[in-house]
Amino acid sequence: MSIERRGLLLAGAGALAAPLSAPVLLRQAQAQTAPAAAPAGPAPGPSFYRFKVGSFTVTMLHDGFFTIPVEGFVANAQLAEVQATLAGSFLNTTRLTIPFTAMVVDTGRHLVAMDTGTAGINPTSQLLPANMRAAGIDPTKVTHVVISHFHGDHINGLLTGTGMTYPNAEVVVPAAEWSFWNDEGNVTRSPERQRGNFPNIKRRFAPYAGRVRQIADGAEAVPGIRAAAAPGHTPGHTCYHIADGAEQAMFLADLTNRPELFARNPNWHVVFDFDAQLAEAGRKRMLDRVATDRIRVMGYHYPFPANGYMAKDGAGFRFHLADWSSAV
Amino acid sequence: MSIERRGLLLAGAGALAAPLSAPVLLRQAQAQTAPAAAPAGPAPGPSFYRFKVGSFTVTMLHDGFFTIPVEGFVANAQLAEVQATLAGSFLNTTRLTIPFTAMVVDTGRHLVAMDTGTAGINPTSQLLPANMRAAGIDPTKVTHVVISHFHGDHINGLLTGTGMTYPNAEVVVPAAEWSFWNDEGNVTRSPERQRGNFPNIKRRFAPYAGRVRQIADGAEAVPGIRAAAAPGHTPGHTCYHIADGAEQAMFLADLTNRPELFARNPNWHVVFDFDAQLAEAGRKRMLDRVATDRIRVMGYHYPFPANGYMAKDGAGFRFHLADWSSAV
Repeated sequence: MSIERRGLLLAGAGALAAPLSAPVLLRQAQAQTAPAAAPAGPAPGPSFYRFKVGSFTVTMLHDGFFTIPVEGFVANAQLAEVQATLAGSFLNTTRLTIPFTAMVVDTGRHLVAMDTGTAGINPTSQLLPANMRAAGIDPTKVTHVVISHFHGDHINGLLTGTGMTYPNAEVVVPAAEWSFWNDEGNVTRSPERQRGNFPNIKRRFAPYAGRVRQIADGAEAVPGIRAAAAPGHTPGHTCYHIADGAEQAMFLADLTNRPELFARNPNWHVVFDFDAQLAEAGRKRMLDRVATDRIRVMGYHYPFPANGYMAKDGAGFRFHLADWSSAV
Repeated sequence: MSIERRGLLLAGAGALAAPLSAPVLLRQAQAQTAPAAAPAGPAPGPSFYRFKVGSFTVTMLHDGFFTIPVEGFVANAQLAEVQATLAGSFLNTTRLTIPFTAMVVDTGRHLVAMDTGTAGINPTSQLLPANMRAAGIDPTKVTHVVISHFHGDHINGLLTGTGMTYPNAEVVVPAAEWSFWNDEGNVTRSPERQRGNFPNIKRRFAPYAGRVRQIADGAEAVPGIRAAAAPGHTPGHTCYHIADGAEQAMFLADLTNRPELFARNPNWHVVFDFDAQLAEAGRKRMLDRVATDRIRVMGYHYPFPANGYMAKDGAGFRFHLADWSSAV
């Protein structure tokens, strides 16, 4: 089960959706989320959150979560050590919850979706469309979709069914990511577990043909949002630096999976990495930068609302969620 | 200004409301919360959160926040030390944000409001009624209101205007708290800053005459919710232990103000304490218990969603927010 699940997380929901019908998935989702006692209103509540970076408004949009066995999740650490680390952060030590949180940045000039959610990779995901509605964001008004990397949980939301979720947007992608995954010659040069990405990527980008813009490391996706390459997790995995006036933030994407594991231990390798050594080098460099400069960070698999700060702590870093404020 | 504000936080909004009209307060609130850039939907979003304790459903209901100068806030620590501690948690070092989060516990048999919010102690509070609506909780269905202590930010929400917010509820209070504040002879035995509480308490409880039930330390407010006295912050300040089946949680109320200060440094005294030495002893005892037994805790002034775990760390404790889950 665990291997198939991991494959799915990388390659998209196709394989899961095939044997299970939509009504079955829906019933599963309901069974998992329905409160046992007398329900006291909607459950779960909307999960979106807002903060400012200069004059920009950032909205974090939760897309639910996935769970995976802890055993085997860290490729190069002993299970007991991983479990002790999880227990130290009061997380489950047998099944790890991996949250998904995408974001939308309103720069005043552009409305920018950064990564797209899972489009329902499992019964406890695909909350993004509802949370986007709750946040008052209309996907048809999105001017740009900016992608960190091409794993399914980040790009599957480009499509709603077979149609475009963002019919009026330009899609901005890291050039290194685009060229790698669009070269069929790379299939056999990829780890087995990553190969399902090739057909999924083709399918998810197909309707956007002619409006995909590739950008190099250091280039701006839109004014104020700039690519900061951190390859390894995938060949072109890219963070994005967001700046307006004197304020800045960094979308880390999958620089680390859960920070309680991989910021605390930057030398640990998540099984989803394409080139784990390269990922580790970029992770250490970027974590050192955001910790030293006390830059607010957003992480796709961080605990909702998935934004905060990194502090150096021993050989690693400790993630502090930003203080929740009801005033944007 | 700071002294008056502190007085207000203890004694209620009466003094603030007098010189400022309702429309002025409303405009202030709008000015503080309106987004600067093109708004991308509602701001702030609803701030309620749910989790289970056994079969009980706990809903955390954010009531906004208050800010106060950091200088003078900790009665027995140097400003520089306090500021370094705040910076270590990435909090503002000149003005401290103090959040308010009340809660409702649905035990299946009873619907229990625990503390009541501020009823609008300042322009950035009084979000509780809207968040309660968003959470689908009808205050007329609340069967019990359980109070930790009688400071204004915890009891003012008993009233909406001059009427009862919870017209069908029994109000359960710590006997020690009730008898202290209802004895006029104690006015002159109280610190200057606490004296405004006497008339405010009289006013807030007045419409509930005949349905206030006093309970002793260790007694149940309702089945599954039990008083755990922790006096000092006020003479009868009480935590509540919540248990169903094998699961448990502890509502800490004001055992500590912000955990980043007073759990990290249990020997620090917040200026709001009635008897700071007594409070410190109870704080150390209770923090040691919840850390040792890894009991989930809820804190009224903790960062939203105001629930998590305490871990021993040096001479103090580090608060870990519980992992956010969109599945209740």
